[in-house]
Amino acid sequence: MKIGLLIIATEVLEGKIQDINTKNLALFLKKFHLEIYTSLVVRDIESEIQRGYSELLDLCDVVVTSGGLGPTKDDLTKKVLGDFLQTKMELSQEAMEVAQSNYKKFEREFPGKDHGYSYLPLGVKPLSNSTGFAPGLWTLVGAKLILGAPGVPREFVSMLYDHLAPYIKKHHLNNEYTGDVIIRTRGVPEEKIFGQVDIELWDKLEKFGSVSSLPQMQGVDVGVKIRASSEATFNTKKNQILNIIKSSPINEFIWHSGPEGLEEVIVKKSIEKKLKFGFAESATGGLCAHRITSVPGASQVFNGSIVSYVDSVKKNCLGVGEVSQFGAVSEQVAIKMAEGAYKGLGVDVAISITGLAGPGDDGKNPVGTVWIGWHTSKDCGAKTLRFYGDRERLKDQFSQYALFTLLEKIQN
Amino acid sequence: MKIGLLIIATEVLEGKIQDINTKNLALFLKKFHLEIYTSLVVRDIESEIQRGYSELLDLCDVVVTSGGLGPTKDDLTKKVLGDFLQTKMELSQEAMEVAQSNYKKFEREFPGKDHGYSYLPLGVKPLSNSTGFAPGLWTLVGAKLILGAPGVPREFVSMLYDHLAPYIKKHHLNNEYTGDVIIRTRGVPEEKIFGQVDIELWDKLEKFGSVSSLPQMQGVDVGVKIRASSEATFNTKKNQILNIIKSSPINEFIWHSGPEGLEEVIVKKSIEKKLKFGFAESATGGLCAHRITSVPGASQVFNGSIVSYVDSVKKNCLGVGEVSQFGAVSEQVAIKMAEGAYKGLGVDVAISITGLAGPGDDGKNPVGTVWIGWHTSKDCGAKTLRFYGDRERLKDQFSQYALFTLLEKIQN
Repeated sequence: MKIGLLIIATEVLEGKIQDINTKNLALFLKKFHLEIYTSLVVRDIESEIQRGYSELLDLCDVVVTSGGLGPTKDDLTKKVLGDFLQTKMELSQEAMEVAQSNYKKFEREFPGKDHGYSYLPLGVKPLSNSTGFAPGLWTLVGAKLILGAPGVPREFVSMLYDHLAPYIKKHHLNNEYTGDVIIRTRGVPEEKIFGQVDIELWDKLEKFGSVSSLPQMQGVDVGVKIRASSEATFNTKKNQILNIIKSSPINEFIWHSGPEGLEEVIVKKSIEKKLKFGFAESATGGLCAHRITSVPGASQVFNGSIVSYVDSVKKNCLGVGEVSQFGAVSEQVAIKMAEGAYKGLGVDVAISITGLAGPGDDGKNPVGTVWIGWHTSKDCGAKTLRFYGDRERLKDQFSQYALFTLLEKIQN
Repeated sequence: MKIGLLIIATEVLEGKIQDINTKNLALFLKKFHLEIYTSLVVRDIESEIQRGYSELLDLCDVVVTSGGLGPTKDDLTKKVLGDFLQTKMELSQEAMEVAQSNYKKFEREFPGKDHGYSYLPLGVKPLSNSTGFAPGLWTLVGAKLILGAPGVPREFVSMLYDHLAPYIKKHHLNNEYTGDVIIRTRGVPEEKIFGQVDIELWDKLEKFGSVSSLPQMQGVDVGVKIRASSEATFNTKKNQILNIIKSSPINEFIWHSGPEGLEEVIVKKSIEKKLKFGFAESATGGLCAHRITSVPGASQVFNGSIVSYVDSVKKNCLGVGEVSQFGAVSEQVAIKMAEGAYKGLGVDVAISITGLAGPGDDGKNPVGTVWIGWHTSKDCGAKTLRFYGDRERLKDQFSQYALFTLLEKIQN
């Protein structure tokens, strides 16, 4: 089953918002061992939406559209679908009832039959919306399906689960168990992995499925896509791959095997080891805490973070009196911040971050400099590194470096 | 000048990473009063990349590609471009030199002429990469340009500025000054804005340019795209629009006119009013601090945040001893947390957040409940609201509600 995504959103092409429905659809399809075949973003212009319908319907068995279903004049999806199907827009009793029940759910009164939601192209079915007001669209073109969902991510996702899931279950008779084995490396560029560290690795892995190499912020993820006939076969192949990796020189660069992110690995390992941790954050400004608290269950191991953005807070909340002596971005201050967090938060492992995310520097260190401190029941210390990029990228990289330090301390 | 984006990235279609180069290209083009015409994501499969080249070259004057330029076997962009142009891949002295200088910049040794970076389809020019190793691609097809950039966002962006910017300046003789007037509302759904609050508004605004209505997390953004012959004409039209808004009943729902986000507005107003602020965060887990510290200059007004994820930290760092009596998610605890932050951080305005982001609840309140507390030199208090969604969405909404509360306190 080939599935295409048509995103109808001038605002995405103008950079006003970031599309996340491609990711939403991909993660939804993964549950059925399916993938998006291609995805297209078009402007809210009739001819462009037409082009989108026509191209994707040529290529795919199912076309999911995102956006353009709202009540305002710039919402054209429904009208253009009518033109595309060469049918007329009509007052639809069914559409009115679906819209009415969408409103009722939120204890709001439906504005009545004159409302745009009451109209649909002839032959198009309205879809209930369990998280919003706008009805979705459903129409078969020959053996192919067009499903129109609102662009609001929450509504888009709920419409997939409510309406596309049953269709896939019925029509996609899948005997395949598809999945990825992901090997997450750190500290080695991709050309070195395959050109120097283990030159036979790619070919060895390719025997199990298609291999990919994906440079991410924290390092290179090597993936192998396995198509198996059952979960058991999948797991056998997966174990064979993991054995190859274990006996390869690449093994020393691997920090995790699996799709989990760094935050999830940290929370999981901390729970296993019954360790509590926390941060003293300056340059990351709360990002380390935010990343950790995005993981369900973080409260079992994460006590808190003192975001000390100015010197007075470093002094009052962390007991760091050395700022004027050494400068905020220094080894001494990083160590004292970690000590302050260790004591104040009552944790087993405290990590501190002090650095310069820019745009201005401190007259001593260049923008991009960071010190990461740690204080555990075993030892304390600090290390430094310089990164490059804008403020957002530097915060990301500082937090990544801090979380890797935390992971090391938790593992040892 | 019509510009199309071809994203060559199976990993985006599988949901492994989120594309941000559409936004990167859009924001780059905005500086030249240009927009992306359409954007297409294809899998790393030769026939799909071919389709992408051919479709976008049909539609656009400039095709920018993202991805598939790395050194591993799954990087096919260059090979397919050669096939598409019906030319052969050859060892290129120029490509080798560009790659060499890319390596030299990072004080790394270029692996030599056998390296994939040394090969290019005949007639394709290599582009220097100021932030990475992989050279870009540049080729003219008739009067149309194909520019191939790496998918790594930092490298993608630097290649736009280094190579596409000069081309646009030379070939895009723009006499237009295009820009958006953005009116940011809150607390009113889009159909009410145009169907109830001011039913003539859409038509009035449309006289100035194309109108859009974009529901965002915090409320509906109404946009008017103005095409003017100069900045002066643009500003005249902008002021006329703002006057229409001021005399419209919609005015009471507007929290800002302009493209700035809530964080930026808060930092700007705090600087104007010379106010310092900070947070005591529980349920948002550092997100409020992270959002504020994403704004350059935040350190002038933001002192810090006490992320108190567990009760012991609420007690030790914020002096909140009432948790066991009232429960962590309560009016009393929200007020005491704000007081603790006000004193501990030494600020003029302190905002606290305590709520349930799930998945588990506390046996008293449903998931989605949040209390926002405040403590200023003038008053203190707390208010509550219930939101819906998953953990990520709830954290986002809690932080949005907290930041709006902060903005109100700063303005009063």
